[in-house]
Amino acid sequence: MKKNTKVNAAILIIGNEILSGRTQDTNTSTLATWLNSIGVNLNEVRVIPDQEEKIVETLNILRKLNDYVFTTGGIGPTHDDITAESVSKAFGIKYEIHKEAFKILESYYKPGEFNEGRQKMVWMPENADLILNPTSGAPGFSVENVFCLPGVPSIMKSMLGGLKNKIVGGEPILSHTISLKTVESEIASSLRKVQEENKDVEIGSYPFFHAGKLGVSIVLRSENQSKIDACNNEILKFVNKKKIEIVDR
Amino acid sequence: MKKNTKVNAAILIIGNEILSGRTQDTNTSTLATWLNSIGVNLNEVRVIPDQEEKIVETLNILRKLNDYVFTTGGIGPTHDDITAESVSKAFGIKYEIHKEAFKILESYYKPGEFNEGRQKMVWMPENADLILNPTSGAPGFSVENVFCLPGVPSIMKSMLGGLKNKIVGGEPILSHTISLKTVESEIASSLRKVQEENKDVEIGSYPFFHAGKLGVSIVLRSENQSKIDACNNEILKFVNKKKIEIVDR
Repeated sequence: MKKNTKVNAAILIIGNEILSGRTQDTNTSTLATWLNSIGVNLNEVRVIPDQEEKIVETLNILRKLNDYVFTTGGIGPTHDDITAESVSKAFGIKYEIHKEAFKILESYYKPGEFNEGRQKMVWMPENADLILNPTSGAPGFSVENVFCLPGVPSIMKSMLGGLKNKIVGGEPILSHTISLKTVESEIASSLRKVQEENKDVEIGSYPFFHAGKLGVSIVLRSENQSKIDACNNEILKFVNKKKIEIVDR
Repeated sequence: MKKNTKVNAAILIIGNEILSGRTQDTNTSTLATWLNSIGVNLNEVRVIPDQEEKIVETLNILRKLNDYVFTTGGIGPTHDDITAESVSKAFGIKYEIHKEAFKILESYYKPGEFNEGRQKMVWMPENADLILNPTSGAPGFSVENVFCLPGVPSIMKSMLGGLKNKIVGGEPILSHTISLKTVESEIASSLRKVQEENKDVEIGSYPFFHAGKLGVSIVLRSENQSKIDACNNEILKFVNKKKIEIVDR
């Protein structure tokens, strides 16, 4: 049997636009779903402003605490795009023109269009590995365990396919959801008992109110399907006993 | 003239459901918009799992670095709701039944319905201040500069009105947006010059692709309207010179 070694990641969202409320971040949700699907546990997310000192400091904390760090934002052509330079400083390596990235963008644009603004996007930490961009040309990059992706959600998402073979996950994290027509307080003590007797399964309880329906979704998560099944049976026992309607399972 | 003292806040989102990708967080955006509107600068957001040790550690960092900390999530009746107990531990104070909260919920529910599960929601740090909940009864609470709100977005949002007089903001942060039919690389060097000459205005550049339109929004932010105006004029100068179409301003 494969040993259960947890692989952990953190996400670092770099962007004043999220902190001002102007933009609703959706990259966390996209990355979280993808990471969980490949057996990587998302440990933490931080959203910080476009400030070099803050980026360097946060990155140096997160990259030591996690197997992988994914950044989004700040790799475009404008003055507020400072991720590549900050990553170079965090690792104490040179910030320079990346020859392969230069070639990619030079042939991506029409002659004469690879201007000064666009050339800023090929400045990267020395010897960075490129993350190819099938949507808009400009690549992301990685240094050691830090992977830098763009902030525009559609472009970021299109680059994940090319990342898959660079990330080694642990056991995939399996989950099962049971949705009940009840309120949390009705099941709280029974659910607590099931959690206490099934410590290897993470049991989450989430009230929902939508389409005029009110209920609770119970989410069971574990790397082990048979443990989820056993836990599910314990829950169905008290659900049946209390005559609670199951909306979905 | 009122002195410009920046008031800073952090948001701590507590919830495995965000880290698993199951739930798209929208509380950050709601809180960020509200904080900026009352002159509070959002410094940082962290999303962490429902783990006591992690909550205590993160809270003790954030509350020292910021004027205000807002937590969301983990104050319901189930076993995975551990925010109130964790906040008590972070401050080193007792976790006990809050008499006022008990009275509120006792009269909120029909006789006999204020059961054990629901009573868990009145356990709070000793002497916590209540944050009233006009939607579903169960109050949030604050201890010193830490304000604990629920995770369900509609309920969280409904509680902000009652918080307004407890938060003292600085100068409101004003913003102005100019949307252009261009790409970032066309304006990058001109925009950089304007930023260098207008250091008190934060200039953000955000590409947009929606409804078949492609363009760039330039966002100017400052506490000082005349500085925003001056900066705006400098931008309009190069926009007119380059004959770039203004989509919206």
